[in-house]
Amino acid sequence: MSQFFTEASSEQAVNARMGVEVDARLKTVMASLVKHLHAFIKDVHLTQDEWESAIEFLTRTGQICGNERQEFILLSDTLGVSMLVDAINHRRPDGATENTVLGPFHVAESPQREMGACITLDGKGESCMFEGRVLDLQGNPVAGARLDVWSDNPEGFYDVQQPGVQPKWNNRGIFTTGADGAYRFVGIKPVSYPIPDDGPVGKMLAALGRHPYRPAHMHFIVTAPGFEKIVTHTFVGDDAYLKSDAVFGVKETLVAPFERVNDGSTRWRSTFDFVLTPE
Amino acid sequence: MSQFFTEASSEQAVNARMGVEVDARLKTVMASLVKHLHAFIKDVHLTQDEWESAIEFLTRTGQICGNERQEFILLSDTLGVSMLVDAINHRRPDGATENTVLGPFHVAESPQREMGACITLDGKGESCMFEGRVLDLQGNPVAGARLDVWSDNPEGFYDVQQPGVQPKWNNRGIFTTGADGAYRFVGIKPVSYPIPDDGPVGKMLAALGRHPYRPAHMHFIVTAPGFEKIVTHTFVGDDAYLKSDAVFGVKETLVAPFERVNDGSTRWRSTFDFVLTPE
Ligand SMILES: [Fe+2]
Ligand SMILES: [Fe+2]
Repeated sequence: MSQFFTEASSEQAVNARMGVEVDARLKTVMASLVKHLHAFIKDVHLTQDEWESAIEFLTRTGQICGNERQEFILLSDTLGVSMLVDAINHRRPDGATENTVLGPFHVAESPQREMGACITLDGKGESCMFEGRVLDLQGNPVAGARLDVWSDNPEGFYDVQQPGVQPKWNNRGIFTTGADGAYRFVGIKPVSYPIPDDGPVGKMLAALGRHPYRPAHMHFIVTAPGFEKIVTHTFVGDDAYLKSDAVFGVKETLVAPFERVNDGSTRWRSTFDFVLTPE
Repeated sequence: MSQFFTEASSEQAVNARMGVEVDARLKTVMASLVKHLHAFIKDVHLTQDEWESAIEFLTRTGQICGNERQEFILLSDTLGVSMLVDAINHRRPDGATENTVLGPFHVAESPQREMGACITLDGKGESCMFEGRVLDLQGNPVAGARLDVWSDNPEGFYDVQQPGVQPKWNNRGIFTTGADGAYRFVGIKPVSYPIPDDGPVGKMLAALGRHPYRPAHMHFIVTAPGFEKIVTHTFVGDDAYLKSDAVFGVKETLVAPFERVNDGSTRWRSTFDFVLTPE
C-alpha cells in the first residue's frame, strides 16, 4: 500500500492525487509549489509550534486586508516576490528602461495636464522640475507617449492616504509627449516613507531586524502605441534608504540625478530619459 | 552597486537584508522559505496574472476564517503540509503507533466514562465495540493510560457541528486503563465525510480534480505518564476513500479491522492495540 503518505514520499503522494483532466498549467504550477513547500519544511525541520505560528500569521494577514489595505501584497513585496515576478515577466534588452513595483497608490484616470504644468496642488514641498525624453531603443523620440506620474507629499503620504487633508489629485498627473518625445513637469522632490507597518508584515520586518522604509521616488507609468508598458519609479540618488528599500524596488538604472537649482521657484531638477521596448 | 535586487540574485538580496541580531532559528527558517519560494517562482516562470490569483486566493482564505472555520489549516491539510510537519516531528520506532492529523473537531474536557460505556448518546448509527490494549514497546500493558476518543455521527457530522441537533458530547468520551492496559467502549462505525468545501480550498480541490472526502475514522488521543502523546485515528478498512483521503491522514498501520458481529445490540467490532513510545 505504498500510495499512502509518508515523510519520504510526501511530494509524490500529494501530486499524484491531481486528476487527469486538470488544466496542464495549473498542474505544473501546483506540482512545483508542493515540491518546494515540502522541501522547505524538510530542510528546516519545521516544528509544530512554528507551523501554528505560520497559520496564525497567514490568517492575520488575510484578516487585516480591506479596501484600503492589501497585506498579502505587502508580504509579497517585502519577501522580494513582487519584484521577482516583475523581473521574470519583463526581461528587456540593455538600454531599455527597467520596471519596478507598481505600489498600492496608483489611481486610474488622474487628470491630463499641459506639458510643463505643476502637479503639486497644495504648494507644499521642495519644488522640482522633472524632465527628459521618451525614446525608442534606437534613440528616436517617441511622440504620443503617455506619462502617468505620482508621488507622495513632503510628509510621505499620497493624496489618497489623506483624503481630507490633501487636495484630490495632489502630486499626480498625466502628460503626453509631442513630436520631440520630451516631457517636463513640476512636482516636488519626493521623500522616503514607511510601508504600512502596524500589521503582521510590520511585525515580521521588526523580527527580521528590517526597517519599513522605501527610498524617495517618483512613480511613472509610460505607455505608447507599439511599445511595452513601463511601470517604474525614478529614485533620488542621495536617499538614506536607497540600498535598503523595504520592497527591493531599486535598480541601479533607475537612480536618477536630483540636482539643486535656483531657477525662480524651482529648487531641484531631475533629468531622466525613458527608453521603450517594442511590443 | 551589486547589492540591488536582480532576478539572478533575488534570494541573496532578500536574505542579506536580515539584521545581525535576529533570532538564529527565525533566520534559518526565513532564509530557507525565501530560497524555496523564489525557486518555485523561477521554476514555473510565474506570470503576473498567476501572482494576482495567488494574492486573491490567500486573501479569501484568510477572510473566511472565523471561530468555526480555519481555512489555512484546511489548505495546509490538503497540500500534505500538516501531515508532513506531524511526520517530521513524530518519528517513532517500528511497532510504535503512528500519529495522524488532529483535525478541527477535538474538544477539550470531554466527559470521563466508565470502561465499556457507550458514547453514542442519541442511539443513531451502526453500533460498534472498540477494544484493545495500551502497551509499551516491550508489549507490557500500560496502566493509567487516558484515551480521549471522538467520531462523527452517521450523517458525517461531529456534535459540535450540529449544536441544536445532536446532544452535547455525542460520540465523545475519555477512558482510563486499569492494570491490564485494556480499553473497551461502544460507539458507532464512523462514516466518511467531506471537509468544508464551500470556500477557497474547496474551489482549489475542484480545480485539481480532487474530492473533499475523508475516509471513515475514529479519533484517539492516547496519553500516559512517561510516554509520548499519540494523536491519531483508526480507519475503517473497507472505506471507499481510504486511498484518497483529502488530507493524506491515512497510514497503513492505522487501518483497523472492522468486523461484523451479532452480539446483542452491537453490530461491529474493531480491535486495535496502541503502542506507546517512551518520552
Ligand atoms: Fe510609492
Ligand atoms: Fe475526523
